[in-house]
Amino acid sequence: MNISHIEHIGIAVKDLKSAIPYYEDVLGLKCYNIEEVTDQKVKTAFFKVGQTKIELLEPTSEESAVAKFIEKKGEGVHHIAFRVDSVAEALAECESKGVQLIDKVPRKGAEGLSIAFLHPKSTAGVLTEFCEE
Amino acid sequence: MNISHIEHIGIAVKDLKSAIPYYEDVLGLKCYNIEEVTDQKVKTAFFKVGQTKIELLEPTSEESAVAKFIEKKGEGVHHIAFRVDSVAEALAECESKGVQLIDKVPRKGAEGLSIAFLHPKSTAGVLTEFCEE
Repeated sequence: MNISHIEHIGIAVKDLKSAIPYYEDVLGLKCYNIEEVTDQKVKTAFFKVGQTKIELLEPTSEESAVAKFIEKKGEGVHHIAFRVDSVAEALAECESKGVQLIDKVPRKGAEGLSIAFLHPKSTAGVLTEFCEE
Repeated sequence: MNISHIEHIGIAVKDLKSAIPYYEDVLGLKCYNIEEVTDQKVKTAFFKVGQTKIELLEPTSEESAVAKFIEKKGEGVHHIAFRVDSVAEALAECESKGVQLIDKVPRKGAEGLSIAFLHPKSTAGVLTEFCEE
């Protein structure tokens, strides 16, 4: 597969209002978008740093996978997303190599990207996402 | 402070031998360096993806902070490192803004970089590193 760069890093936070000031006032990054992804029960805040976005994820429901992550592990990096040419082709390649998939087919993510997740059991513990524009 | 890009993402793994094949054979990245950082009691494997390195961290001792991280949270993303012009200036700015520092002065990290860590208590849960070449 052809990974060009890290598209974004997803970071689980309890609430955006407490986390955004650290990224803006200390690190000097600019929050350019806040978006709710109802599908994943999160509210997201986006920052750009070089080629990569930082995507803060605040759960909007206790049923959210991000809420469960925070409960189990605390706030921190939730997933890494790689930019690929084709999410469908990347998934097919992973499946042929025995990687456990969370999404068998691409679905729509934040910012209108086509996305899919691999299971952390097959990725040395890191929840891994593929993104295609 | 002036952050140009994400220099690397540090990922805690139980052992490099199990993790490297996923990054090489599935994701198609190339491990270009393996290095032991005795100071931090880890063995590291490096991959490059766009502007950013992925740095796998295998603890070489039970006393390693990475071993304690894995014991508490399991394998996964351990820290994010931002490339800055001056680590000393970035630390001074953080301190003036009330951010808790792990390193008060820059020290030498892997690949000969000058580095310093901020405490995750002040960074919305993410162990954060600054790097300078």
